[in-house]
Amino acid sequence: MYDLAIIGGGPAGYTAAERAAAGGLNTILFEKANLGGTCLNEGCIPTKALLYSSKLYHYAQTGAKYGVGADNVRFEYDKIVARKNKIVRKLNAGIRSKMKENNVTVITGFATVASATEEVVTIACNGETYEAKTMILAAGSETTIPPIKGVDTAEFWTSREALEAKEVPASIAIIGGGVIGMEFAGLFNQFGSQVTVIEMAPEILPPIDAEIAAMLRQNYEKQGVKFYIGAKVMEVKTGAVVFETADGEQTLETEKTLLCVGRRPALKELGLEALNLERFRNGIAVDAQMRTSMKNIFAVGDVTAFSMLAHTATREAEVAVNTLLGKDDAMSYKAIPGVVYTYPEIAGTGKTEQELQREGTAYKVLKLPMTFSGRFVVENEGGNGLCKIITNEAGAIIGAHMIGNPSSELITIASLAIEAGWDVERLKTLVFPHPSVSEIFKETLFA
Amino acid sequence: MYDLAIIGGGPAGYTAAERAAAGGLNTILFEKANLGGTCLNEGCIPTKALLYSSKLYHYAQTGAKYGVGADNVRFEYDKIVARKNKIVRKLNAGIRSKMKENNVTVITGFATVASATEEVVTIACNGETYEAKTMILAAGSETTIPPIKGVDTAEFWTSREALEAKEVPASIAIIGGGVIGMEFAGLFNQFGSQVTVIEMAPEILPPIDAEIAAMLRQNYEKQGVKFYIGAKVMEVKTGAVVFETADGEQTLETEKTLLCVGRRPALKELGLEALNLERFRNGIAVDAQMRTSMKNIFAVGDVTAFSMLAHTATREAEVAVNTLLGKDDAMSYKAIPGVVYTYPEIAGTGKTEQELQREGTAYKVLKLPMTFSGRFVVENEGGNGLCKIITNEAGAIIGAHMIGNPSSELITIASLAIEAGWDVERLKTLVFPHPSVSEIFKETLFA
Repeated sequence: MYDLAIIGGGPAGYTAAERAAAGGLNTILFEKANLGGTCLNEGCIPTKALLYSSKLYHYAQTGAKYGVGADNVRFEYDKIVARKNKIVRKLNAGIRSKMKENNVTVITGFATVASATEEVVTIACNGETYEAKTMILAAGSETTIPPIKGVDTAEFWTSREALEAKEVPASIAIIGGGVIGMEFAGLFNQFGSQVTVIEMAPEILPPIDAEIAAMLRQNYEKQGVKFYIGAKVMEVKTGAVVFETADGEQTLETEKTLLCVGRRPALKELGLEALNLERFRNGIAVDAQMRTSMKNIFAVGDVTAFSMLAHTATREAEVAVNTLLGKDDAMSYKAIPGVVYTYPEIAGTGKTEQELQREGTAYKVLKLPMTFSGRFVVENEGGNGLCKIITNEAGAIIGAHMIGNPSSELITIASLAIEAGWDVERLKTLVFPHPSVSEIFKETLFA
Repeated sequence: MYDLAIIGGGPAGYTAAERAAAGGLNTILFEKANLGGTCLNEGCIPTKALLYSSKLYHYAQTGAKYGVGADNVRFEYDKIVARKNKIVRKLNAGIRSKMKENNVTVITGFATVASATEEVVTIACNGETYEAKTMILAAGSETTIPPIKGVDTAEFWTSREALEAKEVPASIAIIGGGVIGMEFAGLFNQFGSQVTVIEMAPEILPPIDAEIAAMLRQNYEKQGVKFYIGAKVMEVKTGAVVFETADGEQTLETEKTLLCVGRRPALKELGLEALNLERFRNGIAVDAQMRTSMKNIFAVGDVTAFSMLAHTATREAEVAVNTLLGKDDAMSYKAIPGVVYTYPEIAGTGKTEQELQREGTAYKVLKLPMTFSGRFVVENEGGNGLCKIITNEAGAIIGAHMIGNPSSELITIASLAIEAGWDVERLKTLVFPHPSVSEIFKETLFA
């Protein structure tokens, strides 16, 4: 009998396994495909590898602004993809060796819950059964395929196929202007595709600060990406997308179509129906310790249908394991960063203005163009950007949102300030290195 | 009669002027040359502009590793320098307009203190006199020219001339392996100079974590920079440097010689002798409110001979002004970041191991290669790097030191943790965006 069984070997699952085993729990981990889950194998990491190559291509093309010239700037997409695959394999091996070091039993196969009481969970996998006292469900999520006419017969890509493509398409229609859609839009546009983004909402990147989302859209429009917002897709055909806007219905011909309208918890066929776990949205309901309605079963990551981000999943996994190990811990969602790895990058943490307006909570905004940072000026000839800090009425920092590189690396400064309960006056006293883009936070506090 | 006179228009001086005027003080600022001081005109900002171009040149040269090719990669140094000058002018104009917006009176000229009591300070400049109730000394620093044989007659560069150079020298000897020396070493080496660094101490970058300094030196050695450490310069000649190591005396022939062994407070001819201010090292002693031994005179920035960093100066200026405005404030040196803008970057904050060993304070170290961050792997093919977190015996974070890009933008996360008094267990609960290089902090906490 294992102390802990974990279903799913993504960031939540492998982190839970590592921490639990390090804490002395006899742990078994079930993964249906590759350790690292969607994030490492088909998401966060491979997209960043492709995007970094596209960034270097952009740098080489635009170096003249900085006094650096080159002829015949080109990219070799097969090499870029091969490098991406190599990195995934390397990081995958790293996780595998961590599991080994910590004596985690790893079973590759699709696991289902055969039965569960509050004393023992029985899991079936590859024709065998395994028993554990406790279980963490970390099965992740899968691409949502909406019930649009044509999706059963037409050819289209999801992010998985887009990542596996051996060539850059001449044109691509991206259905869904969310994070995944915008990262691929940037990637393919940079490499010369004619990119068209079709988004149903009135602005791209719906959960992101709306002002910043609009700035990215305008920036991408200048770079040649076409946008149809407030547009409803009526039909997907092989080589075409039919959609409706206020101007009526139109058909866009396109070499490839990428469908990325969202992801949903991957709960099918896990055998959970019999357990009758309490539900939340299309996922599993949990408390602040990530415990489900059965006291020995926890759910973390995308199956909770809540934050749907790898780093949230990792932290939720730690909370679950700490709880199992008898340590006091609770999940805080006060400062969860969200990053869009476009060029320029977008990052945000804490509350957005839109959220606060919906809640009816009073707030204050401080904001400043990124060009108030000398280093930003040095590294972004002709670039703009925005830093926005949101406080409650008493001045405590409750959100920060920015566009401009390297926002993804800066946003944690704001997360820490939020979690530490710092207000504007306290953060003003922090010494930021000069010159750095991070100084924009300090400048914004004085705005 | 002004409320406040400020001598020196560098980061400390112009920040003091802006904040004081915004706070209602009738303020006059004296600057002998250009607003922005050494930092903007001859230091932090222009070096970063040159270094960014050298980084893009490096990217273009090494893009093949990432699937990005180019022929005839080249740099146009005159354009690089022209862009640097344009940025300096732009930021200079920005400061000038800030002064105007805040109704700060700016006098361009060399100011001297004619007389001072605790009620009124009289300042002479360009043949006129000005009276103020209080004064902030922010006169900055100047390059130290050590009493080496030949410095009075031989031709050599200081950082000022190195920044103004119109061409990259074929070879350059850099006397002093400190921050300035290493930034120029990286710059000129990248652009094809044969660079030799001569440092008296047993390792380069003496105040920086020694393990990290050694990693940079080894990295630069691989890139073709020659180092002589523990080497004493005996004579500077035009076109040659004579120095002594354990192997005996040798003469290095070189096209250019850059002398950068340090900076010292610029206190000469300011008329301070008569005031009899208490001294600290070769600067002016101050208390936690930046007040000198005369209660209406404050000293901030490099004239205090303490931290000698622009961002320290800026914060000290704010402390002085807050004190003048009757607000409680005190300078904290617990988390002052230090950055070396080499490639790869180095950054540190708080205590170093060397400092703690000298103090005899017990401490613990957590460290991990930067390659434990997936994004670092993605963006640094074949690169290494190190993240080191230092805690006291109770686990509170008291220092962090790292090498690897973009350390300069990450280090503030550690500074904030130190200032917030967070310990390892608390910082473990913070959610870092995935994938980001910033995650290396979290990984290191679990190391």
